[in-house]
Amino acid sequence: MSQRVLVLHGPNLNLLGAREPSIYGEFTQQQLIDQVRTAAEPLGIEVELIQSNHEGALLDALHAAPERFDGVVFNPSALTHTSIALRDAVAAIPIPVVEVHLSNVHRREPYRAVSFVAERATATISGAGPDGYAAALVVLARRFAGTAR
Amino acid sequence: MSQRVLVLHGPNLNLLGAREPSIYGEFTQQQLIDQVRTAAEPLGIEVELIQSNHEGALLDALHAAPERFDGVVFNPSALTHTSIALRDAVAAIPIPVVEVHLSNVHRREPYRAVSFVAERATATISGAGPDGYAAALVVLARRFAGTAR
Amino acid sequence: MSQRVLVLHGPNLNLLGAREPSIYGEFTQQQLIDQVRTAAEPLGIEVELIQSNHEGALLDALHAAPERFDGVVFNPSALTHTSIALRDAVAAIPIPVVEVHLSNVHRREPYRAVSFVAERATATISGAGPDGYAAALVVLARRFAGTAR
Amino acid sequence: MSQRVLVLHGPNLNLLGAREPSIYGEFTQQQLIDQVRTAAEPLGIEVELIQSNHEGALLDALHAAPERFDGVVFNPSALTHTSIALRDAVAAIPIPVVEVHLSNVHRREPYRAVSFVAERATATISGAGPDGYAAALVVLARRFAGTAR
Amino acid sequence: MSQRVLVLHGPNLNLLGAREPSIYGEFTQQQLIDQVRTAAEPLGIEVELIQSNHEGALLDALHAAPERFDGVVFNPSALTHTSIALRDAVAAIPIPVVEVHLSNVHRREPYRAVSFVAERATATISGAGPDGYAAALVVLARRFAGTAR
Amino acid sequence: MSQRVLVLHGPNLNLLGAREPSIYGEFTQQQLIDQVRTAAEPLGIEVELIQSNHEGALLDALHAAPERFDGVVFNPSALTHTSIALRDAVAAIPIPVVEVHLSNVHRREPYRAVSFVAERATATISGAGPDGYAAALVVLARRFAGTAR
Amino acid sequence: MSQRVLVLHGPNLNLLGAREPSIYGEFTQQQLIDQVRTAAEPLGIEVELIQSNHEGALLDALHAAPERFDGVVFNPSALTHTSIALRDAVAAIPIPVVEVHLSNVHRREPYRAVSFVAERATATISGAGPDGYAAALVVLARRFAGTAR
Amino acid sequence: MSQRVLVLHGPNLNLLGAREPSIYGEFTQQQLIDQVRTAAEPLGIEVELIQSNHEGALLDALHAAPERFDGVVFNPSALTHTSIALRDAVAAIPIPVVEVHLSNVHRREPYRAVSFVAERATATISGAGPDGYAAALVVLARRFAGTAR
Amino acid sequence: MSQRVLVLHGPNLNLLGAREPSIYGEFTQQQLIDQVRTAAEPLGIEVELIQSNHEGALLDALHAAPERFDGVVFNPSALTHTSIALRDAVAAIPIPVVEVHLSNVHRREPYRAVSFVAERATATISGAGPDGYAAALVVLARRFAGTAR
Amino acid sequence: MSQRVLVLHGPNLNLLGAREPSIYGEFTQQQLIDQVRTAAEPLGIEVELIQSNHEGALLDALHAAPERFDGVVFNPSALTHTSIALRDAVAAIPIPVVEVHLSNVHRREPYRAVSFVAERATATISGAGPDGYAAALVVLARRFAGTAR
Amino acid sequence: MSQRVLVLHGPNLNLLGAREPSIYGEFTQQQLIDQVRTAAEPLGIEVELIQSNHEGALLDALHAAPERFDGVVFNPSALTHTSIALRDAVAAIPIPVVEVHLSNVHRREPYRAVSFVAERATATISGAGPDGYAAALVVLARRFAGTAR
Amino acid sequence: MSQRVLVLHGPNLNLLGAREPSIYGEFTQQQLIDQVRTAAEPLGIEVELIQSNHEGALLDALHAAPERFDGVVFNPSALTHTSIALRDAVAAIPIPVVEVHLSNVHRREPYRAVSFVAERATATISGAGPDGYAAALVVLARRFAGTAR
Repeated sequence: MSQRVLVLHGPNLNLLGAREPSIYGEFTQQQLIDQVRTAAEPLGIEVELIQSNHEGALLDALHAAPERFDGVVFNPSALTHTSIALRDAVAAIPIPVVEVHLSNVHRREPYRAVSFVAERATATISGAGPDGYAAALVVLARRFAGTAR
Repeated sequence: MSQRVLVLHGPNLNLLGAREPSIYGEFTQQQLIDQVRTAAEPLGIEVELIQSNHEGALLDALHAAPERFDGVVFNPSALTHTSIALRDAVAAIPIPVVEVHLSNVHRREPYRAVSFVAERATATISGAGPDGYAAALVVLARRFAGTAR
Repeated sequence: MSQRVLVLHGPNLNLLGAREPSIYGEFTQQQLIDQVRTAAEPLGIEVELIQSNHEGALLDALHAAPERFDGVVFNPSALTHTSIALRDAVAAIPIPVVEVHLSNVHRREPYRAVSFVAERATATISGAGPDGYAAALVVLARRFAGTAR
Repeated sequence: MSQRVLVLHGPNLNLLGAREPSIYGEFTQQQLIDQVRTAAEPLGIEVELIQSNHEGALLDALHAAPERFDGVVFNPSALTHTSIALRDAVAAIPIPVVEVHLSNVHRREPYRAVSFVAERATATISGAGPDGYAAALVVLARRFAGTAR
Repeated sequence: MSQRVLVLHGPNLNLLGAREPSIYGEFTQQQLIDQVRTAAEPLGIEVELIQSNHEGALLDALHAAPERFDGVVFNPSALTHTSIALRDAVAAIPIPVVEVHLSNVHRREPYRAVSFVAERATATISGAGPDGYAAALVVLARRFAGTAR
Repeated sequence: MSQRVLVLHGPNLNLLGAREPSIYGEFTQQQLIDQVRTAAEPLGIEVELIQSNHEGALLDALHAAPERFDGVVFNPSALTHTSIALRDAVAAIPIPVVEVHLSNVHRREPYRAVSFVAERATATISGAGPDGYAAALVVLARRFAGTAR
Repeated sequence: MSQRVLVLHGPNLNLLGAREPSIYGEFTQQQLIDQVRTAAEPLGIEVELIQSNHEGALLDALHAAPERFDGVVFNPSALTHTSIALRDAVAAIPIPVVEVHLSNVHRREPYRAVSFVAERATATISGAGPDGYAAALVVLARRFAGTAR
Repeated sequence: MSQRVLVLHGPNLNLLGAREPSIYGEFTQQQLIDQVRTAAEPLGIEVELIQSNHEGALLDALHAAPERFDGVVFNPSALTHTSIALRDAVAAIPIPVVEVHLSNVHRREPYRAVSFVAERATATISGAGPDGYAAALVVLARRFAGTAR
Repeated sequence: MSQRVLVLHGPNLNLLGAREPSIYGEFTQQQLIDQVRTAAEPLGIEVELIQSNHEGALLDALHAAPERFDGVVFNPSALTHTSIALRDAVAAIPIPVVEVHLSNVHRREPYRAVSFVAERATATISGAGPDGYAAALVVLARRFAGTAR
Repeated sequence: MSQRVLVLHGPNLNLLGAREPSIYGEFTQQQLIDQVRTAAEPLGIEVELIQSNHEGALLDALHAAPERFDGVVFNPSALTHTSIALRDAVAAIPIPVVEVHLSNVHRREPYRAVSFVAERATATISGAGPDGYAAALVVLARRFAGTAR
Repeated sequence: MSQRVLVLHGPNLNLLGAREPSIYGEFTQQQLIDQVRTAAEPLGIEVELIQSNHEGALLDALHAAPERFDGVVFNPSALTHTSIALRDAVAAIPIPVVEVHLSNVHRREPYRAVSFVAERATATISGAGPDGYAAALVVLARRFAGTAR
Repeated sequence: MSQRVLVLHGPNLNLLGAREPSIYGEFTQQQLIDQVRTAAEPLGIEVELIQSNHEGALLDALHAAPERFDGVVFNPSALTHTSIALRDAVAAIPIPVVEVHLSNVHRREPYRAVSFVAERATATISGAGPDGYAAALVVLARRFAGTAR
């Protein structure tokens, strides 16, 4: 029986492919999610994407997630560094949330090294590009299978 | 044909299982590496472990790694937060290095949120326990296969 | 003749009772507002609740408040610590706004001790749990009655 | 049966009415305490005032308070921001202590936004002028009645 | 042939004229935009206003702007100091964005001297009141005309 | 009747065209001032340039300016970030001073984001290259015409 | 007709002559006050000394001073750097208070460069040894005579 | 011939046994001093206890100590972190002062890691509970015996 | 026989009377120096004024001072807070230098509380307006007379 | 039956006697350890010394200590302030570790006041010279005897 | 054929020999430059000295240097730590500039460890006394000879 | 008679030529040391190289150096910024140590501008590439010859 995972995308990720490609790569959000689905299939995981530029909509999506999903792959993008509300929502829901960043946040502006979300996420993966999503699915799959600590 | 990956462990990780189990889990270093080998097999990856309490020995191991390995999974443990020399060695070698932490470094003392290594690592994974090593292998495998950015 | 008070709730407070009960208590938002209404009655105050996870919606509610309300009891939750916009809205409207926090913000993460809203609020009450709302109503009632400074 | 509450006043509050009236208001300490007594009566609370300019005397009063009082309304004034000893005394005694400030400490010098006492107080109320004392009594009364968390 | 410029207004600017007039002036948002249109006409520029209290709506407007506009005059108001997401959106779109502030942000609270947007804006103008908008139009007009660097 | 505006240039601006052209552009100071004069003419403004590498000479020029000029366009270059004396002189004279920077000071070293002058300038314009001077003239012209706040 | 000036001494100044003479000089407190009286006489000023190691006693003395004195020469010694209460008392009383330090506080530990009292004192004099008291009397005498600003 | 040592206790230590026993232990001050006397006897040291909640009284006691004592074991408790006056008194007297803390100040709030007294104390011992007093007596005894540096 | 004292004035002090009179008073520099001369006469001191807006000229004047003067009353105005060179010059010359500020530097912007000069000055006097100069002369006169430490 | 205690010495302590004697004293490491043995004998404690300049060797020694020793007296010297790895090793082993410093670390460079080890040590003793080792043995002896908290 | 090198000296260096000889040595500026000339001769370098207390004059000298010199040995003395303008001038000219300090700036006040100039200098040499100038000439000579990187 | 100088190299310098050549140059360590020997010969200096990735080995080498060498040219590379132990070893040995860095540490990450070693080194030279070693030999040679201060 398959699990369902929400891929939740924060502000500006709808512009992937067009936005600062030297940092974020040249693939579009659609290409990224296709690649994630390919990686999810052998793990028996179904993937659904929600993207919003509204912090409030991301909070609503996190609140609703436990009803329909078994886990979340969350790229809060710029809100990572400023939103205590997202951190609190991640802490409030009972399913695992893996935080993923496409770029290496440690090589950029100092304020991007701060993550309010990481403190409450199940795990954090950064710098691996789209492969980070595949890695996050592995962490979730193993956690679903009960092998994780 | 298989790839070879060095799992490189910093200070005190030889004490896994005995050391602060509420933070690091109850498995020993041997159990961890066995679990990593199990995850590596289907990816066609051979894994070798080097652990040292000596920063200098870790530097030597990184310098020598490109001759025998295709990539490194590196848990620098306490040296993560203080060693610029390890950061420079990671930057100096031509094979990918994925930094892994068993615990969520963001939930502990503030000085554990600083990583000199992350700035130059291919990717960083923290908080996922032993599953983080499996995730790191996925990142390396995809990079070996040329699917990564 | 009775006064009307808006109880305005920020992000995640809709999860009260389910969210980190060791910090926020075990009552739900509905139970909290019922208790507030009980405390409001003898003071001749009618209470209405608006909750939103959207900063923008909270701003809209503050802007509209003076048309229908005589005062506001405002728990901005996580936005307390990051929203200069809410602070500016509190400063911009001509009715008293009492800031309330359920938990003692001084016993938690350092960033929770910062309040952009407090600087412009009529009064700030924290740490008293639901009783803080009753106390806020007393401050507003006395202010309506003209006894306050 | 009535409860007894100690109103404990720190340095310079004996000068109320004469001291910087634009910040602290024009009522004297005696007028303030009369107003507090009026608010206390319907709650079945008897109020007693102790004021001292000596930190040591305030510590002695806190230590002795549990023998004669059920709760404390504490305005440590300038010592709020510098006295770890008062914080420790508040933490050491078994009756509730509500910290009250007449002025909005967040609108003044930055060092007034720091409170060592708040971290251990039952609740903190600031900016409401004399009404803050009435609000503090409500918090104590509800706590005596067992309705608080 | 005329150019089109979006005037994009952040939180609370809908309250212009009512809100802290000693800081923001006594003109309303409508009066401001009329004055901007008057200044735009001789430059052959058409002006359209979008105001929102929602960060997400501002992000959406920036993303959509290149389809209908040649440049943006952006007053992010309070979000200037806290929104990395807006900064990223400004960096992501291919038309010039001039940041404008009515008040002199350097004479106010220290946190108002920080601008995440400025780092990626074409130019920043502050302190000139409504005239800052006229000045911003001059910068855009010259840039449209190719005289700018 | 025309107004007179002093363009006051701080240290190293005499090297424009030769100095770090990737930051400051390839035009010389003479070409810049010619372009400023062209922009000033339709506004009925006469422009005069004073450049000095001496802070003292800039202070003298500011002190003397009200006798011969109606306003100042001031690019203090490196002294922007270190000279409290220039800030005090700007505050001391009764004619408007618009601070202009060719480069975007927010994209450079952190110490360039600090401006002692901005706190007392009528307006500040940065990042627009030579067009910033034209924009500054517009601000001054409108202020001379009495349309500004 | 002569004026009366209180010389108020904080903690440890009773040890003058015995305490770290390389910093505070070799004269005793009695010798210091004798020298101050000699300097006061030609100015028509009577001088009285109060020394206490108790912050509370110093607060009491400041509160009582206006009844018997026309001005205060205040050396708060170590409390200078830590007592907000003393600062508030100086601000609360209607007679001039000149703060004096024997040693140059800027040449010592960094925390001695901070003075909470200076912010509200009429004037501050440091580093001049006993001569600083004579200088303080001159400031008070001129202020009594109405020549000061 | 025996030496005499003053055990000097700062604020709240009179509450030992009742106050936060998880931090300070379950013994009372009387039990502690009895244990100290037992440890002092074989060293030929007589011990006397002074406890006060008043910083001023502690200063007086330190000033008077050289007349009756050969050394001091000083636990300034909360004043450790805030009192420059105590530090100055320790520096001013000619007998050795060993600073002792029952708890490990490094494991608690960051402000408890600061000691103004330590800078001038003969030695500092923390974290050893009541045994720290025995250790302090050993340091003093050896110093009395002239074996120390 | 009389002594000679140089009154050395830094940037913008030539504008006294015209510049921010609420801070600096309404007297001109000439009126100030006249008042200083009146105070100097009974002390047997001749006074000469040098004012410059050039840090270099102030350095030259300090270097030359020992040839013609017995002491300096130095108001470095804005350079107080930024010039290490002036501090070094004060340290380098063998005559006493008393630093004087008209305004209370502690009540203004935080950067005005920093003085590089104070660390090496004989004494520092601030906040007393023109009377501070009279006080400075008293310090110098007593030092000339050999009564100072 | 006797206990065994490891005296573990960090970098440069092999140079004792030759190295900065004004700070560390004139005795050699051999003389120090002889003195420690003399103090250990009456306590029934055997002492063994390990010194290394290699952080890794110190970690190895701490890991191995529980097999052969009942407690550790640890002077990490310069590594005290920089080694998180040593702190983790101290936390990981089940025998008591008392941290000792010969010099008063609070009187030296600010970075010497930081101790990563202290946070996890049983007790910390500094400033007592060689007597600090004797005091550490007392703490260990009492802990072995079960009298400690 | 010989090269020409400008030795450029900042404020107060004209006082060498007289100024704080324990820090700067007992040789005069003339003796220093004679010694530099002796060291320059075998390298085929002619040396010329310019000293000024005026930052503006140093800027002018740097601007003019490329016309007459092949390189600069620059001791900006106190301006090292405060002058961004000098840093910009060093960056603007096309000849190598070696920064030299007589004293070890790292052993002095913390603000002397900051160098705005170093960031753009070809090399920086400090602490070697007059020998630092000889070393700087070697760096320049090798660079002239094309052996440097 | 010739002197002997130890060239001591810290972590990663064995990778010179391969490691980040844009920062460190394209020469290998062997080529560097050959070039140093060429520069040493005319100065009558023999040069020996020790490189280690182990901090402990560098400490051992410094301790042993005085037996076989007259001076040290020390490039601690990454350990410069983190090792207090190396600083202490440099302070402990009686022969001169000149610190050299190939790259300009001031143009790189902020943490590379910190040097614990510089505080105790005889001189520090950075940014000159291999020529810095030649310059260091000149400083040592002059010191050996007794011409240095």
